[in-house]
Order: sequence, then structure tokens, then C-alpha cells
Amino acid sequence: MRELTIIKIGGNVVEKPMELESFLKKFSNLPQPKILVHGGGNYATELSAKLGIKVTMLDGRRITDAETLKLVTMVYAGMINKTVVSLLQKFGCNAIGLSGADGDIIPGVRRSSHPIDWGLVGDIQPSNINTSLLSSLMGRGLVPVFCPITHDRNGSLLNTNADTVASSLAVALSSDYSVRLIYCFEKEGVLSDPENKGSLMPLITRETFTYLQRKGAISHGMIPKLENAFSALENGVSEVVIKSSANLGNEVGTLLK
Amino acid sequence: MRELTIIKIGGNVVEKPMELESFLKKFSNLPQPKILVHGGGNYATELSAKLGIKVTMLDGRRITDAETLKLVTMVYAGMINKTVVSLLQKFGCNAIGLSGADGDIIPGVRRSSHPIDWGLVGDIQPSNINTSLLSSLMGRGLVPVFCPITHDRNGSLLNTNADTVASSLAVALSSDYSVRLIYCFEKEGVLSDPENKGSLMPLITRETFTYLQRKGAISHGMIPKLENAFSALENGVSEVVIKSSANLGNEVGTLLK
Repeated sequence: MRELTIIKIGGNVVEKPMELESFLKKFSNLPQPKILVHGGGNYATELSAKLGIKVTMLDGRRITDAETLKLVTMVYAGMINKTVVSLLQKFGCNAIGLSGADGDIIPGVRRSSHPIDWGLVGDIQPSNINTSLLSSLMGRGLVPVFCPITHDRNGSLLNTNADTVASSLAVALSSDYSVRLIYCFEKEGVLSDPENKGSLMPLITRETFTYLQRKGAISHGMIPKLENAFSALENGVSEVVIKSSANLGNEVGTLLK
Repeated sequence: MRELTIIKIGGNVVEKPMELESFLKKFSNLPQPKILVHGGGNYATELSAKLGIKVTMLDGRRITDAETLKLVTMVYAGMINKTVVSLLQKFGCNAIGLSGADGDIIPGVRRSSHPIDWGLVGDIQPSNINTSLLSSLMGRGLVPVFCPITHDRNGSLLNTNADTVASSLAVALSSDYSVRLIYCFEKEGVLSDPENKGSLMPLITRETFTYLQRKGAISHGMIPKLENAFSALENGVSEVVIKSSANLGNEVGTLLK
């Protein structure tokens, strides 16, 4: 089966021009086919403050009312997505920026308002992803770059978690490709002691994860990321790696198997 | 030769939700292949004011500094483009939103800073447009929706006039299609007396245009639009129509031949 690399970068890289450019240069050098999924970063929050739009966060997640949806669409699908695409083009990588609404590639379903009303937030099912269009674009040498915006097929855009976009694409495409999913973030990988950089775990299995979680050795913010990753592995993805964006292209990171 | 319709809508429609939805419903009913190009509207200017970004206009055109480019990218490529795409999807039209940077479809060249420095503004050449990717997308049943943002292939996005994006696409694609280019705006077409709705001219030839211009009977704002249109006709486009967005789908308008 042909290999496909799907990489997710977080907001911390996206909002630092030098780091972003250095990351995208490395990304350009990776073999194709490949897909990039980017998150949002703090720019949406800063812009909300400037525009007097109230930001409501719950457990570190944004509640998306109509004004906030407009704003994240501007920031994610507009500024960040097109900046990334134009930089990749500069490095000779033929990127095409997409939201889930484009070509109906990633239809979402608005999350139920019970028990918590998250607003215009979309959940996605890998089985609903239009993999045929994606394969055809990649077959033409294009590199899809996704922002975390989907749509409900009924005229509304939806804010969707970028980690979930990446893992859902990975699962959906694993019927046609051997998929390597790489989550890039600010740390070197999963640390057994969050305060100690030297405690990087090169490999975590589902068993190790369950054990470490029971011991309380996995930081709170890391748990959903790892859950997402193991679920991707259980649904056909060949390999998941969690690493620093600065280490893209080398072997430093945590491999999940 | 296969027929292709390229439609440009201006900011006046884009910023009125009811009119936009009604226009997009009519657009969805047109036969494929087709392409939509949208302008920006006043939202970018309103947002500039809210964010304290100074807007400098010269002859009705925006001077695009770095902050303004960020802003128009957010508004045009983000909010407007994705709103239009999600509404078209609702009407069963498989739209794909694009800027000129995506797939390197429309590379631009930054306009010389002499005699006037327009800032990050891009001029485009129909011969540089990647028509092969566009034809392939349309061949898959997709409907490209362009925002007026291009790129310089060197990592910078560029603000480009939406009328020019539409006419350049029309000229470039006229080697493969018989292209009908429709400019939709707020009036019913070209009026011989701007104050009198009943003075709609159903047909204007290049000779009539020159004559009316000499007589001073064409409004100032209309001249570049007509110049653009006649230049498209002289470069292979089969037909240009100028009409109200409310009349899309019927025959009311001005045909240029």
C-alpha cells in the first residue's frame, strides 16, 4: 500500500513567523503524498478581544457562538490557511488550502447542546469523508492543507477540533494508504515527567498508556491527544507519532503503537 | 467547444445575507461547468475601522499595506469565501473555495511602486493561469469559487481586483471552452442615463462604447469595467454580460459584443 503522511501543527507554531517558515520548509522536503492540518493559535482570541467579542472557554475549549464562528473562519480559513499555502508554494510544495466545506470533503454534524452547548461546533465521522476527491488531488501532485472548519451541509460552517480533523482524515484514508499520522506540538513528545525534558518516552503502547494514566503520570492536556491517537491506530492508521515541530524530519519524538 | 459560465459578484451582494442566499440559489441552478468569483464589499473597511487599521483609498481603490493584506485575506479568503461555499453546498452545488495561491492557480506579480505605490497588490496574466487544474476540478463536477487574493510565488499573498480575476480566468479558459462572462452588480446593466432605470442598453459594441464615452454618457465607475469586458472579448471570450445579481437566470442586462 502506498504511504501517506498526515501532519497536524498546533497554534503555537502557526503564530510565530520564523518557526512557521522553518517548519514549512521541512514539511516541503517530506515525500508526497502528504496532508497538513493546522490549528488556530491565540490570534483568534486576540482578535476577539480587539473586536469586543466575548470568548467563553470551558475545559480549555472555545464555545462557538455565531460571532465567534465568523471570527475563527476569518482567522483559520483565511489568514492562517492562505499564509501557510503561500509559504509552501514558495518552497516548491504545491499546496491547496481547504476547509471541510470545500468539495464537501469533511461534512460535520453539529454537536448536541446537551449536556453542554458548545455552539457551532462540528463532530465528524471518518466514514463521511470524501476520500476520493482527496486521493485525486494528491494524485495530481497537490498537497492538501486543512483548516479546522467543517460544515453541516445545510449552509452552516462548524468549528471542529484540529486534532480530530487530522485523526479522522488519517482513519478515512487508511483504507487506501498506509498512513503515518504525526502530531507536532511544542514539546519533544510525551514526557513521563512533564518538568523533565530528559524523560521523553520513545514508545508508548496502549498498555503503557493505561498504566501511566492510572499512575497519574500523563499530564491532563495530553490525555485527549493520546486517546485520539490510540483510537486512530485501532481504526487502521499504521503509525502515530507525537513530536516537536522543530524535530520534523528527524527521529526524536514519541511513537505510539 | 464546451460552454463555461464565469460569474463575478460584487461586494454589495456578498454583504446582504438574504440577497446573497437568493443569488446563490439561482447560481446553483445554472448548468455546469461554472466558476464564481466574488469581491469583498465593505466588511473589510468596517473591520479596519474596528481594529484601528487606517484605510487609504485612491480613486476608489484600496492601498494594501501588510496589515490590510492580513485583513482582506481574513475577510475575502476566510469569511466570505467559506460562507459562499457552505451556502452553495446547501443548494447541492459542489463548490470548492480557492484563492490564487491554492494549487498555484493564479500567480500574480506585485505591481510596480511607480508612479503610485499600491502596496501588496497583484497584477495577473491570463497566460500564467493554471487552467489544467481548473479543468480537472470542473471535470470532477466541482464548482470553483474564487476570492480576489493571489500570490507572488515567493511567499507573499497579493490583493487583486476581483473584476480582473474574473476576466483573466475567462480569457485563460477560452482556449478550452466557449466562455460566457457575467458581471453581476447592483444595477440592471449599462444605463445610457444613470438616473433613469428605463435607459438600460441591451447591447453595446466596441463602437457604441467609444461613441458613448466620447459623449460622456458612460458613468466614471463603469469605464474600467467596460474596458475590462471588451478586452476579454478581444482575447477569446465569447460573450460578456453586465447585469443585476437579482436578474441572474433571466435575460435582463447588457450584452457586450
